[in-house]
This record gives sequence, C-alpha cells and structure tokens, in this order.
Amino acid sequence: MNQNPTLRPFLEKMRAYTPGEQMDGPQIVKLNTNENPYPPAPAVMEEIQAALGRLRLYPNPTSEPLRRALAAYHGLDPEQVLVGNGSDEILRLLVHATIGPGACVGMVDPTYSLFPVLSASFEGTVRVYPLVDREKLPDDVFDGPEPLFILPNPNPPIGTLYTRAEIAALCRGRQGRLVAVDEAYVDFAPRDVVPLLAEFTNLVVTRTFSKSFSLAGVRVGYMLSCASLIEQFGKLKDSYNVNRLSQAAASAAIGASAYMEENARRIVRTREETASALRALGYRAPESHGNFLFAIHPEAADHARQLRERGILVRYFDQPLLRDGMRISIGTPEQMARLFEALKEIVTS
Amino acid sequence: MNQNPTLRPFLEKMRAYTPGEQMDGPQIVKLNTNENPYPPAPAVMEEIQAALGRLRLYPNPTSEPLRRALAAYHGLDPEQVLVGNGSDEILRLLVHATIGPGACVGMVDPTYSLFPVLSASFEGTVRVYPLVDREKLPDDVFDGPEPLFILPNPNPPIGTLYTRAEIAALCRGRQGRLVAVDEAYVDFAPRDVVPLLAEFTNLVVTRTFSKSFSLAGVRVGYMLSCASLIEQFGKLKDSYNVNRLSQAAASAAIGASAYMEENARRIVRTREETASALRALGYRAPESHGNFLFAIHPEAADHARQLRERGILVRYFDQPLLRDGMRISIGTPEQMARLFEALKEIVTS
Repeated sequence: MNQNPTLRPFLEKMRAYTPGEQMDGPQIVKLNTNENPYPPAPAVMEEIQAALGRLRLYPNPTSEPLRRALAAYHGLDPEQVLVGNGSDEILRLLVHATIGPGACVGMVDPTYSLFPVLSASFEGTVRVYPLVDREKLPDDVFDGPEPLFILPNPNPPIGTLYTRAEIAALCRGRQGRLVAVDEAYVDFAPRDVVPLLAEFTNLVVTRTFSKSFSLAGVRVGYMLSCASLIEQFGKLKDSYNVNRLSQAAASAAIGASAYMEENARRIVRTREETASALRALGYRAPESHGNFLFAIHPEAADHARQLRERGILVRYFDQPLLRDGMRISIGTPEQMARLFEALKEIVTS
Repeated sequence: MNQNPTLRPFLEKMRAYTPGEQMDGPQIVKLNTNENPYPPAPAVMEEIQAALGRLRLYPNPTSEPLRRALAAYHGLDPEQVLVGNGSDEILRLLVHATIGPGACVGMVDPTYSLFPVLSASFEGTVRVYPLVDREKLPDDVFDGPEPLFILPNPNPPIGTLYTRAEIAALCRGRQGRLVAVDEAYVDFAPRDVVPLLAEFTNLVVTRTFSKSFSLAGVRVGYMLSCASLIEQFGKLKDSYNVNRLSQAAASAAIGASAYMEENARRIVRTREETASALRALGYRAPESHGNFLFAIHPEAADHARQLRERGILVRYFDQPLLRDGMRISIGTPEQMARLFEALKEIVTS
C-alpha cells in the first residue's frame, strides 16, 4: 500500500473551528449565528442580476469598485481598504502576517472563539486576558507583548462596547505591535473607532457585510488601516479572493447604507425589548451593543436544549466563562414572540 | 507619531502574484487569462435565482450538497472532496499543510507562476525541475525529496499532457510526500488521473470551475484525495469559504456537465484550427491540451505588444524559458478571426 504523505506536525494536533449549526427549514427559528432577520436592500438583487452576464470572466482581483465605495463611505483612501472573502479571510490574513511558531495572539476571554484556531494554524498560541469585569478591559491588556491583539468591539457573546479612549490606550501601549478591532457588530452600537486610524498606524479595523447588511451568505469582509500595512496584507490574499456576485452585492449594499441603518435601528429596538422580557422571566441580560443578547440563568444549558427540541436554535458555549448563559441572536418581533412562548413554558415547568 | 507594527520578516521581502490583466470593454478581445468564451449552462442562472432569497443566512460551511454532487460525478466518496474559494484557495491549503520555513515546493519550469508566491508566503522556497524536453518529465523529478510536488496537467503555458503512467511513477517515487496534480485544464484533454486516487494515498487532484465550466467569476475549485488528507486540509480552510451563490452556481454546472463537455469540444476544435493557422503564419505552436496555445516566434514580445495596441490581449511572460512565445487563450471562432486579421498585419509589416 502506498504510504500517506507527511503533513506539518502542527496540523494533526490542531482542532478545526466549529461554526454554529446551519440548519434549514421553514419551521426553524434560527437565533444561533447572529444573522440579520431582514433581507438585504433591493438594490443588492439588481446589482447581482446585472453581474450575471459576466460569470465566465475573472472578477476584479482587488475588488476595486467596492474598495473605492468603502473608502468613500469611511472617508479614507482606497489604499487603506482591503476586501476579503468574509472577515474570516481578513482575520486570517492578520494572523498570517504577524504570528509564527510559538508567537501569541493576545485576546480577551470571553470573545469570538475563532482566534485560537487561527493562531494554531500558524503554529502560534494565544495569551488570554480574562474579563473579570466584563465592562472594563483589565489593566495588563494595555501593554502586552503580543505581536497581534484582537478585540471585537462590541465583543460577543456578551456585547460589551469598549470606549474610543480605551482603544486609543491599547494602540498607544502597544507601539510597534498590531491592534485589530473587529467591528463586525458596530452598526448596532452608538460609536466606532475608525476615526482613530488618523492617529494610530498600528491599528486595523475589520468589518463585515454579514451582520448589519444582511449578507452572511455572500461572504464579504474588509479591513481598514494605513496604506503601508494594507499593501503588505494584500500580498497574502488569494489572487481572486472575492467573486463577481459578492463584489456586486456588497457594492450595492454600501450604496444603500440608509436601508441598512433603518434595519439596524429596528434590531436595536427589538434587542432592548427582548432584554426587558428576559429580565422579567428571571434571566440576567447584560447590556449588549450587538445583534444578540447573552441570557444568564443557572439552567441555561438545559434551556438551550429544550429550545432546540421546540425548533428554536440559540448558541450555547460549553466554556468556563460562558456556561451560565446562552447567546440569543435578535430576530424579528415575531420570532422573538415564538422564543418567549417557549421560554415561558420552559422556565415555569 | 505612532510607530508602525512589526510584521513577520518574510512578508516585506515577499512579492505578490501578478494576475493577468482584467481589462473590460466591448471592443477588447480578451485572450489573456484562459477564460471560456462561452457562457455557463442556463441551469446556473436558475440556481442562482433560487438562492437569492437566502443571502442573509450563512452558507453551508463545507458546501455539502456540492460536495456530494462532485463525489458522484467522480465516483468517489463525499469525504474525498474539499471545496474551495477557487483553486487559488485549494492550492494555498496544500502549501500551508506541507511547507514551513526553508522547505521546498517541487515544480517544473515552465508552469503556473503562482507556486513560488504560495511557497514564499509560508517562508518556503521552490526547487525547480527545468523541462528541457517539454514532452517528458526529467528523470530526477520522480524521487525528489520535497514534501509537496505540484504539477499542472495539462501544464500551462505550453499545454503538455503527461501520461497516467508518469503520474503513477511520481506517486510511487515520492512515497510519504505529497503529489498534487492540478487538472484545471483537463476537460480540454483526452484523459485525467482521478482513477489513480484508488491506488495512491499521497495523490491530490485539484480542479476548478473557472475554465471548462465558464465560471471564473464565481470562484469555485476543489480537491480530490483520500478522506484522511481531506480532513486535515479542511482544518485550514476559512469557516465559510464558499458563498451561497457560488455553491449554487457550481452545483448547477456539475449537473449540466454535458453542456460543459459540448463547449469543451468546440474549444478543442477551435484550438486545433488556431494551431494550424499560427503555423501557417510562421509560428511554432507545440501541441496543447489546454484551452490555450503557446505561439513561438523570435519577435513574440513585440507581437504581443502590437496586439495589445489593437485591443487584443494575450499573455506574454518575461521569463527565461518563455520569452520566445506568447500564450493565446482560445476564444470563439469570431475572436480568433480578429486575432488573425491583426497577426497577418503584424507578421507581414
């Protein structure tokens, strides 16, 4: 028998990232992967239709028209924008550019659970700064030695929003090391940190079309930074990393940003109503600035399981700092009504 | 002023891959990036339309329905298939899994010019086996020490097709090391090496929808190998690496493979007519099994430039073994007629 090839040793030891369950079905209430319950802007469909005639041709390798639109949207130069195949690709490029064998990605805990997997795939590890107080970054985070520190802001699964002053202090304390702020959920929050790019050349801000723009299915994310960093990261991306239809969809979506903002306001309203209703049922629900809430209850694991039996999916993380709650994505008011119908039964039984 | 962050030293030294020019315009005859001149199957448009209603939801993370369709198409198990964001991603995963600092990717020369860039991005280099005789692999290629050897088959920009026996000898001689055969152009050739997967567990075959399936714009590629390797490579892919619309397009295209095969036959006919016409004009044109020809002439560089001035794009590689020719993608008979109109003027002037 032919002998299996030897792969790099880190790979067999490495565990893959587990994405949230992508279960389909008309009866399912899917509140487990922070998708937007509202459809994308009508202009998105029109732009996709217009792009269908050219599928046989390679797309623009740097997503140039989209890049220009994003630069204008943020008041930056196109050279400060790099477009990727979802922010999955964008975050991977950041780790690829900074982490080698034995190096550490700095991260808080709890946070987005992808970072340790990304670091392991470049033979790195993570240094974890536990969020003892969820509202405040720990003191030692501001001058850590890691070549890359990644902080989602708002930070899932709780949804805490750190201040611009705190992010500025991170950049100042981490001179010569990269600070990446993942603003995937920022359109559901009152402020972003893009203005800090004018001041800090070690700052990268990452964004996605998956949440506020209702385009998780098309996979477009991007990063904003100084032009010299963008040029370096760009060398590591796949040559044609974003397909024609996704470029068209994202360009249309950014052109219709008022539509996105209106949807985001609706979701924020539903989030606040959901938080009150959860508290009324006996859950703790810390303030969230994302399109999700973390509902805390001694029997959260059991509640998540019982919800699943009723066709309602939420996300339960079996991890030390998260075992006491479940993350609930904010859906339409109708979906939340179905959630509470079920929760009332569960809590009172 | 804030200090720029330190990136990994290899990155600043590294050069990015230069994709072929993606110039648009109704007057341009684009024969420079081996795209298919015919549109994709009508079923592709229908499947994309059907997927438009679910853009707000994440796609299937492992492209499961497409994976099953590809497995059935090739007579393999779904566990033997990994779908990627173009074969760009697939080839990167192969390099990521095998190449670390100082390691070599084995490759012939000339070949697809992406491999040295991919290897450099993992701090590796390449060992080049020059194709002194373009029809025959050099003897020392069969037992080289590299952890990964990549051979496009047919091999651009010439289009040589190596035999199944030669590929089997590579796998046999490179026990415990990976052999990747990139079959991007195989639908324009009389045979593939997929049957060898039953025999060799160190073989990976890569494919793309960009060429024969007329879907360069949607970015879908895949690899076929033994299940245990596919599982390892899968850990390195981005979580949601292929968007919904591209999954839908590729699934429809594989279902309409008879349409693809008919187009491929037309392109092969045009290729053979083009080869004869080039030879009649004084070019050498080695036998090609791809959707392109390499037209050899002492003044090839000048001819490529003059074609460009006339709005006809071909690909000229300013590299030692390729300076004497230009690669011409096979277009429609009408496009080839415009090419020859121009070439006649150029050659006789």
